This record gives sequence, C-alpha cells and structure tokens, in this order.
Amino acid sequence: MITTCTLCTVPHRDGGPRRHVVRLPVVASSTSVLKRLLLGRPFRSDQSPPTSLPKRIALPVFASDPLSSVAYAPAQMLMALSAAGGAAFVYAPWVAMAVVVVLLVVIASYRQTVRAYPSGGGDYEVAATNLGAAGGLWVASALLVDYMLTVAVSVAAAVDNLGAMMPVVASYRTGFAVAVVALLVAVNLRGVRQQGLGFAIPVYAFLAAMVALIGWGLFRIVGRGERLRAPSADLAVSEIEIGGGLAGFALVFLLLRAFASGSVALTGVQTLANHVPAFKPPKSRNAATALLTVGLIASALLLAIVWLARSTRVQYVERPTTQIEGAGPDYVQPPVTAQLAETVFGDSSVAFYLILAATALVLVVAANTTFEGFPVLGAHLASDRYLPRQLHTRGDRLAFSNGVLVLGAGASVLVLAFRANVVALIHLYIVGVFVAFTLSQVGMVRHWKRVLETERDPAARRSVIRSRAMNLFGAVLTGAVLVVILVAKFNRGAWISIVLMVVIYLLMRGIRQHYDRVGRELTPLDQRPVLPARNHAVVLVSKLHLPAMRALAYAKATRPDTLTAVTVNVDSEDTRLLVADWEGRALGVPLTVIDSPYREITRPIIDYVTSVRRSSPRDVVTVFVPEYVVGRWWENLLHNQSALRLKSRLHFVPGVMVTSVPWQLASSSGKDGADRMIRGPRADSRPDFERAPEE
Amino acid sequence: MITTCTLCTVPHRDGGPRRHVVRLPVVASSTSVLKRLLLGRPFRSDQSPPTSLPKRIALPVFASDPLSSVAYAPAQMLMALSAAGGAAFVYAPWVAMAVVVVLLVVIASYRQTVRAYPSGGGDYEVAATNLGAAGGLWVASALLVDYMLTVAVSVAAAVDNLGAMMPVVASYRTGFAVAVVALLVAVNLRGVRQQGLGFAIPVYAFLAAMVALIGWGLFRIVGRGERLRAPSADLAVSEIEIGGGLAGFALVFLLLRAFASGSVALTGVQTLANHVPAFKPPKSRNAATALLTVGLIASALLLAIVWLARSTRVQYVERPTTQIEGAGPDYVQPPVTAQLAETVFGDSSVAFYLILAATALVLVVAANTTFEGFPVLGAHLASDRYLPRQLHTRGDRLAFSNGVLVLGAGASVLVLAFRANVVALIHLYIVGVFVAFTLSQVGMVRHWKRVLETERDPAARRSVIRSRAMNLFGAVLTGAVLVVILVAKFNRGAWISIVLMVVIYLLMRGIRQHYDRVGRELTPLDQRPVLPARNHAVVLVSKLHLPAMRALAYAKATRPDTLTAVTVNVDSEDTRLLVADWEGRALGVPLTVIDSPYREITRPIIDYVTSVRRSSPRDVVTVFVPEYVVGRWWENLLHNQSALRLKSRLHFVPGVMVTSVPWQLASSSGKDGADRMIRGPRADSRPDFERAPEE
Repeated sequence: MITTCTLCTVPHRDGGPRRHVVRLPVVASSTSVLKRLLLGRPFRSDQSPPTSLPKRIALPVFASDPLSSVAYAPAQMLMALSAAGGAAFVYAPWVAMAVVVVLLVVIASYRQTVRAYPSGGGDYEVAATNLGAAGGLWVASALLVDYMLTVAVSVAAAVDNLGAMMPVVASYRTGFAVAVVALLVAVNLRGVRQQGLGFAIPVYAFLAAMVALIGWGLFRIVGRGERLRAPSADLAVSEIEIGGGLAGFALVFLLLRAFASGSVALTGVQTLANHVPAFKPPKSRNAATALLTVGLIASALLLAIVWLARSTRVQYVERPTTQIEGAGPDYVQPPVTAQLAETVFGDSSVAFYLILAATALVLVVAANTTFEGFPVLGAHLASDRYLPRQLHTRGDRLAFSNGVLVLGAGASVLVLAFRANVVALIHLYIVGVFVAFTLSQVGMVRHWKRVLETERDPAARRSVIRSRAMNLFGAVLTGAVLVVILVAKFNRGAWISIVLMVVIYLLMRGIRQHYDRVGRELTPLDQRPVLPARNHAVVLVSKLHLPAMRALAYAKATRPDTLTAVTVNVDSEDTRLLVADWEGRALGVPLTVIDSPYREITRPIIDYVTSVRRSSPRDVVTVFVPEYVVGRWWENLLHNQSALRLKSRLHFVPGVMVTSVPWQLASSSGKDGADRMIRGPRADSRPDFERAPEE
Repeated sequence: MITTCTLCTVPHRDGGPRRHVVRLPVVASSTSVLKRLLLGRPFRSDQSPPTSLPKRIALPVFASDPLSSVAYAPAQMLMALSAAGGAAFVYAPWVAMAVVVVLLVVIASYRQTVRAYPSGGGDYEVAATNLGAAGGLWVASALLVDYMLTVAVSVAAAVDNLGAMMPVVASYRTGFAVAVVALLVAVNLRGVRQQGLGFAIPVYAFLAAMVALIGWGLFRIVGRGERLRAPSADLAVSEIEIGGGLAGFALVFLLLRAFASGSVALTGVQTLANHVPAFKPPKSRNAATALLTVGLIASALLLAIVWLARSTRVQYVERPTTQIEGAGPDYVQPPVTAQLAETVFGDSSVAFYLILAATALVLVVAANTTFEGFPVLGAHLASDRYLPRQLHTRGDRLAFSNGVLVLGAGASVLVLAFRANVVALIHLYIVGVFVAFTLSQVGMVRHWKRVLETERDPAARRSVIRSRAMNLFGAVLTGAVLVVILVAKFNRGAWISIVLMVVIYLLMRGIRQHYDRVGRELTPLDQRPVLPARNHAVVLVSKLHLPAMRALAYAKATRPDTLTAVTVNVDSEDTRLLVADWEGRALGVPLTVIDSPYREITRPIIDYVTSVRRSSPRDVVTVFVPEYVVGRWWENLLHNQSALRLKSRLHFVPGVMVTSVPWQLASSSGKDGADRMIRGPRADSRPDFERAPEE
C-alpha cells in the first residue's frame, strides 16, 4: 500500500515512521447518480487539460467575444441617434468610424500588453503589478461585473435573434435566456476540454454569414444598382423630448451618446489578451497577430454593417411603442442583422434563417468563452485571498466549479432583473470595460517606465519608448471615452455597475482583511506545541444505555486527570431513575446532577463546564457527547436535537474540547458512500470493543 | 455552590465524589429579545399552574367548545336541506330534534365516563385501557385530526360572524382566519394560567346574547304576534339536481344528510370529559353535573334557534351563487345568527353588533380551549412514545410549546387549503368526532364488563349494569350516526379526514416501532463498560498554524497508543510546503500524506481511518479535527466547510471517535449568550494552556 514519496528528500524506509505519501486504492466517487449524469466521471488531478491550441482553433474561440459584439453594436448606435428622430440616422457612419478608431487604438495597445505579459494574467495582473494591490482590485471588480454582463448581454442578444426566427422564443424571452445560461453552466461544469473545434465552427459560420450578407448586399446595391429598402425604412419615427433638436450642444451630446453606445463593439478585446498561453509558440507574437487580425475583421464588419443599414434605411429606435407611429404595445423591433438579412435575402429564405442562427450561436459561444475567463480570474483572486477559498478548488472535471456556478447565478440575476433586455443591460455593460481598459493601459505605461530604468540597449530602448507612447495614447483615449460614457450613460444604468463595482471592491478588501487577520492570529509563536496542565473529562449522560456506557469506557481509556458523568435535571422523575440505576451499577465514576429550573439543557452544561475550567484555567475540559447515528433523515427528528445545539455552543468556550462518541444504530449501516470498504468482511454495527473481554 | 441532594439516600459529604445535585447560579436565559417580548419571562419548573378552577370559571371555559357549535350547526342543517329547494326547510325542526336526542344520549354516556375515569385522560385513555394499544391509537388519531379541525372550523365561523359586521373581514377571510390562529398560538405559548376569567366572560356574554335574541324574538312573535321575516325569506331558492325531489329514498337520504350535518352540534362534548381534574372536588360529580348542564343548555339553544329560524323563514343554501335567483358571484350569505339578529333587532341596532361580536368571540374561545387539549394529548402520546419526544418538553412558560406550534400549523394549513370555508371544513369535521365517540363508548362497555367480574355488592352491580346499558346504547347510537355520516358525507370531504387519520395512525405506529427498536438496540448487555484494546490518535492537519499545533498538543495529552498527523494531498505545492515546514520543526509526530487524485478530502480520510481500524478491529480510532470558531455567520463561508462534512461522515464509521479541537478566533468573543459568565474576569480568546511554560 505504501509507495514512493515524491514530497521530501529524507530517505524513507518502507513502513518507517517518516514515510509520507499513502496511496489508498481509489475508486472514483459514486456519490450521486444525477451528478454523474450531468458531469460525467471525475478526472484525476494528473489528467491536466492540453495547454496549447492550434491558432485556427484558438483564434475563433477567443475571438467570439469581440466579433459577436458587432451583432448588437450597430443597433446601439442607431438607437442612441433615434432620440432625435429619424433624421439623425445619417450620422451613424461617422459614429461608427469614431468607434473603429478607438477599437484600433485599443488593439494596438493590447499588442504591447501581450508582449510584456505573456503569462495571460490579463488586465488584473497588469494593474496589480504596476498600480499596486488597490489598482489590481479595482480592475478585478470591473472585470467581475463585466463578465457577468457579457454573459447576460450575449445570451439576451442571442435570444433576440432566435426570437426573430421563432416567435415562441420572443414570447418567453427571459425564460429562454435563463435556460441558455443554465445550459452554459452545465457544459462548463463538465469541463472545457472538448470545446475547441465544436466552438470554433459557429465563429467561422458567423463570419461566413456576415461576409455573405454584406457581399450579396453590396452586389445588389452597387453591382446591380437595386434600391433595397429595409422593412423598417418607411416607419415614421418621432424624437424623444430631449429639446434642442439637432443643433449645437444637443447634437454634440447626441453624437457622444451614440458613440458611447457604439463603444460596446470594443468589449471582448481583453479575452484574447488573457489567453496568450493557449497559443502555439511564439505565444506572444501569435497572440499579437491574432489581436490585430480580429481587430481588423471586427472593424471591417462594423463599418460594413452600418453602411448596409444606412443604405437600406434601417431604423432602430430606443422606445418602439412611443417613437414609432402606429406601433402597438406588443410591437417587437427585429434586430438589425435580422432586418438586413430580410432585406438582402428575403424574409423566408434559407439564408435569412442561417444568418440569424449563426448570429445567435456566435453570441452563445461568446458567453461560453466568458465562462472560462471568470472562474480563472476568481481562482486568481481566491489564491490572492480576495475571494473565498472555495473559488480556488477544482471540481470533479477539473473546472473551477464554484466560479462557474457564481457566474451563472450572477448572469441569471441580471437577466431576470432586466428581463433579458439587451438595451438596458448594455447601459450597464461598457462602464466596466473601459475602467479595465484605462487602468490596464495606465499600468502598462508604468511598466514601460520601469523597464526603461534598467534597459541600456539603444534599440531596445527605442522599442520600449514606442510601446510606452502607444499605451499612453491608449490610456488617454480610453480614459476620455470612459468620461464620455459616464456622462452619457450615468443615469441610464451606468450607476448600477459603478455601485456593483464598489460593492465587489469593498467585499474583496473585507475578505482579504479577514483572511489576513485570521492568518496573523494563527501564526505559531512557539516552536513546539505545549501540553495542557490537566485534562478534566466530563461525560454527558441522560440514560444508562449503551451509547452512554461506551462514552464512559472511552473517556476512561483517554486517562483524564478527573472524570465525572454529568446529567441535567429537567424532569426530576427521570433523574431519580437514572441516579438509582447509576448507584445500582457501581460504575466507579461519580454522577453529578445539574439542576435546571427552567428546563434548559445547553446553558446548565455550559455553566458547569465553565465553572470547572474557572477553578483551574490552565487546564482543558473534554466533554464527551454520546450520539446516535441514524440512517434515515426523518429518524433525526425523533431524537433530541440537543446534542447538536450543545456541541456548537461548547465550541465558543475557550479551553473546551468536544468529543463525539457516535453510536451507529442498525439503520445507519449501508448509508455511507464508502461503506462496504469501511466495514470490510467483519461488517457489524456494534463496535467490536464493546464485547471485548478485558477489564 | 453545592447544596442538598434530594435524589438519593446515600449520605453525602460536601464536595465528596458521590454528591449529586449541583445548583449553579441561574439567571433566566436572555437569548432573544423578540422571544421575551412574545412570551414574557420564563417560569421555573416548580412554579406549576394551579390545578383546580371554581366551577363558575371552569364550566364556561370548557363549555365554550360544545356551546359555540350551536352558532354554526343550524346553518348546516338548513344548507343540507336546501339541496331539495326552499320547500325542504320545513323538516329542519325534526332534524334538530333528532340531533338533540343523540346529543343527550352522548351526554348521558359521558357522565358514565367521567365517573369511571376521573383522571381526565379522556377518550384516548378509555380506548387505550379497554381496547388495547391499537384502539387507543385510532382514537388518538381521530382526536388529533379533530382538534385541528375544531380550530379551523371555529376560527372560520368566527371570521364569518365578524365579516357580517365588517365587510373588510369578509374580503380577506383567509388572511384574517390565519391571523387569528397565529394570535391563539402566541397566547398559548405564553401559557394558559391567566386565561380563566378572561375566557369565561365571552361565554357568558354569548349565552346572554342568545337568550336575549331568542327571548326578544319569542316575545315579538308569540307575545306581540308580529310576523317577522328574515332578509333571506323572500329569496327564490332552486334545488340542486339530485333527482327524485322530496319523495321516497331521496327524501330519506336528504334527511339523513341534514341530520349528519347537524350532528356537528355534538362536537366539543369530550372537552368537558377531558378536564375532570380541573374541577373542584368532588371532581367527577361536579364534572358530570357540568356535562348535563351544558348538554341541556346546548339542546335548548339549538332547538330555539332552529325554531326561530323557521318562524322568520330564514333560508340558507349550499351553493348561493347557483341556487339563489339573482345572486351575483360575489354574493355572501350572512350566517344564520346574523340573519336572526337582524330580523329581531334590526340590522344597524347595537344589539345586532353585540350578538355578532359575542358569537365571534365564543368561537375564538372554543378554538383556544382546543389549544389546551391538543398539546396535552400530544404530550401523552409522546410519553407513550407514539410521537417525537419534543412534544413532551415544556417550553419557557411551562406550556407544551411544540404541541401548540403543531396545532397552529395544522389548523393554518386547513384554513388555507379550504380558504376558511366553514361548510367545506365541516364535511371533514364530524367523522373524527364520531369515531372517537363510538370507540370510547365501546371501551366503556368493556370497562363495565371488567368491573362486573370483580364487583360483588348487589347495589353497586346494579349501578354498573345501568351504566353499561347507557354506554352500550351510546355506542350503538353513535356507531349508527357514524355510518350515516360516512354514507352521507364520504365524497364531500369525509374521505379526507379518514385518509388523515390513517396517515397519522401509521405515522404514530411507525414512530413507536422506531423508538422500541432503538430502545432494544441500546439496552446494556454487560454490567460494566468495557475499555477498548488500543486507542489510535489521528490528527488532521492542513497547515501548521496554531489550531493544528493545539490539536497535536491535546492529542498527545490524551496519551494514545499511536499518534499520527494526517494531511490530504489535494494541491501538491501546498503539501510540499507543509512537509518542509513539518520536517523543519521536529515535532516528534510522524506526518502521513494521503494521496487524493480526485481532489476529495472526506473520502481519503475515511478510507485511511478505516484501514487503520481494519488492521486491529478491537481498537478505537480518535480523529482530532482542528476547527475555527468565528463569531459572524458570513465568516463561516470563508473557511472551508470540509470539517463539518467530514465529521458527519466519520460518525458512520464504527469504532471512530471524533474530537473537535475548537480555536476561538477574536471575532467569536462575546457571541455566546452566556459569554460573560464563561470567560469571567480572565476573558481571553487565546486558551491559557497555549502559553503555559511546561514541556
């Protein structure tokens, strides 16, 4: 049974006292059939997942997040512009171009990041390393909020696209969205190893769908000169009472808000930067190339879709029921991609359905990618003691199961709170993204500054100075966009994410303080443990049955300095019987009766134990509690619950040890998962020593 | 601190090893302010409630149950008759007479019972003594169901009467009924001692109200010859499709059903029979007189009310919305007493409101009386081990608190399930009453038969033979009524109470079997406890912090035969650090590392402990679990819950003792109720022995 020790360098003799590793015959746990069905059989810790993916798989999986945002970003811009009525839509291409500029700057900045931090810790690592613990923590708070929102927004947008295909989905949108989140949780609890190819295909399909849509649209409009009109083109759109129309300050504010809304296209860029280790070597370089590729594709798609939407006169408004003339209360705006697909290919063509399906699917893949990022960040934070340790334990399938569950719960709460409304969710979304962008870029500037202090090679110094300039520009630009977003969106929901971030920040700081305080309290001061002066044993007795007899025998075997049996006098008739029985048996242990005029059990015992300890405070008191062990849950209701309550209260009394002396009733046998192994061939519920002939 | 011992006759030396009773300075528990506000300060066990009440108090309190049923019994008869349309109401007085005959026979029978069983055990005692355990158990099941229904019906009827005064009560009838039940629970948790006079007044008020109603009605109708017409007199009442109209079998069945419904007037008769000990001596005789008095009053009231209802042409139907022409879906029938009060005194007279208020109040008092009977029966059954022991413990105020809570919960469920509908609840109600009546009378017949076997005095024999004849007649009559009730009401809800009774019967039998089985398993076979052969100590260690050091020190102090520290290798980096730390400190205790390829903690430890025990099955293994004790609930979330799970699983392994070595973190201080007393002047969260200089 004892095999090699891989832990220390002390020479081991087999069976000797210093041997370390014991390998017991292990069978995979069979605890719950349901759990096995959901998760599959558990993985061993040494079956670690493959660490690198070929680029053609890695790229699409991690790119699903930034690419999928082009599915909802154009609609956000149009919607913001619609506040000034249908006439404002003409500004859409200009807004889109501004967004693309920012996107490309951010991409360029992150290319510096992946070079400098190839470990994949991402924004959190960059900020924590360069801006100190507080900076890292703010970025982490922003990211945690954002991950939840990414799932909520992506799933809600996916449901919107499905709803444009199947009206039943549109009617129960919230329910469907929560179901999708639940499905993602289940998939991710099973582990992410099989996800590579299966999740790359939808991304390629989405790209193909978009290229087909844009290409065929371009061909029909430019090539054939057709005048395509979207189904919403002829709706009469009225402005929302913002006052001032399209002049001066109002126009500037309108454009800024549209730009802020469109910035949602930038979400997901970090996903790639966080996954440098998953690329084939040279990892940093491949990741940087991938970043650029994805950035260019996303920019092209965004511009093309906005152009196509303008050409076909797509209208998309913020408040359909009030802004669109003649719209009933049940009116649902089809997503922009759905309108374009209908316009270019016709509303019952196969292509229409394929485009909507591919869009929905890529959004789900984007949400799924987040299910990898969030638990990893949670585990990082847990190992830095900012979050509960449970987030750092890997589940049966080696995933950080608790992180997956927390993300699923958070996203579901958001979906339910905002009824899977993409617009409402996006108001909350981008704040966190730009907080992380800005802090991360500032961190990078600091990073390069530190590098410059030691770097002497002129060529390398020039390259570092270039990188620093890039990141500085990125920091200033994203910081400016953050201000714009805060101004334009604060009272539309951005304040909610700020509150959430502050709450999470304070929570994490509090948790860290707790762990630190406990850690300081528990650091050993002496080199060797010190023995207590004396050990007083107190055996609780209510009746002289076998569990009590066994507790007495066991208490004697621990050779305490004093030994007393104690009973609480709640019913004097019972107590009288017990005393008579006790006297009759001459057990050699004194029985003390504690009076309890108010029929309490816990308090008199605590008071008694305390009085024993007070008379000699350097001693320790061991309380022996005989307990029944029953096999059926309802049987617990039939035995006094006092033992449980008493034990938890005794834990608060310093210097008191609590020993449970369990007595397995016949019904408890076979109730333990590892039962057969435990009992072996001599299975018997009566412990053997009860019948031993000694003493 | 040590005072006299009242428990045994062994001479005591103060402080000697055989002293028994320890009286610690006791202050009443201050656990929860809310609890104290609700219940008042706790009572000492020796503050027992007064055992006898003067008759003028006892009589009305216990009579509230039988008397209050005349408030709803007439309506039930009319309702049953209404199935054949308005014409059938002429039979009401005849049905009432039949009910009164049965009522008087039952009263006469119970006068025998109170003479033979002055202890007040009631029907359960009679049946258990004379018909064996099963008979007693059936009666107990019937009574438990009935008590719950008494509360539900009385409270629902009270709310009906209140609703006739205040429409707001009628709109939220279910809510109000549940609130009244909750109020009764609160009052009864405070204890029943103050209830005497306060609860007698409503009964006298109700009697006065009824006498005034009937007297003034009689005077106006007979004395002045007025032709009084109830507000419902002119409604056109149609029959329910029962077919056959008022001829032959249909008529017989109609009358039987009306009789069965009217039998609800008999409920509550046992309440008096159960309270013989509460009367002044000669208890039995006073109780028998009280029974007769109450029986005659109830009979007179019933007949008078039905007469008055007929004279004023009160109509009361089963399905108001379909049977009454022109009644809308919101139409609510006023209770019969309300209609009579309106007819005799006018609908806005003071007398009208006084009569309704007195009726509502007496019904609440009747429900309250049940709150005494049920917990006492529950405690009886618990001490006979048919119900969980908790029902036998007296609460802070010496009431059987758990019984009060169970009754309140049961009644609330019934009220909610039937939406406080008196009619629906009454269908369930009377079955149980007559099951108890019949079995109890059969038991009495057996009782007298046994008495006859030993009694030799001819005068006494004659009296016994008379009593037996009375009880036999009672048994036959109530049995016949039971059959009528079952036939007439089975598919209207009586089946529900039968199912409930059977379930409760089986439950109680199961509980008794469990307790018996456990009792047999736990009976000591040897005279003296036997020591285990050897004690193997296993100290669980995850880190070398103070709790672990203390557990090691304490484990050493118990001088086990072998001592090993054990850790589970979940994260090999952590384990490596622990082993290095361990080696560095030279603690003199070997550390065993258990491999856990599936990252489990509980199973590897259980397997290890089992393997230790298997190699020497007559030994015992003590597992020492270092535990944190935190003061704030959320802090528990931040420490691994593995200890708790592990402890409960270890309980299932035979021959394994589990010792918690608690470590009180600073935050835990002051969190224990008795904390100041425990810590005394030397309050400190660090246990003293940790700093002791020895070893």
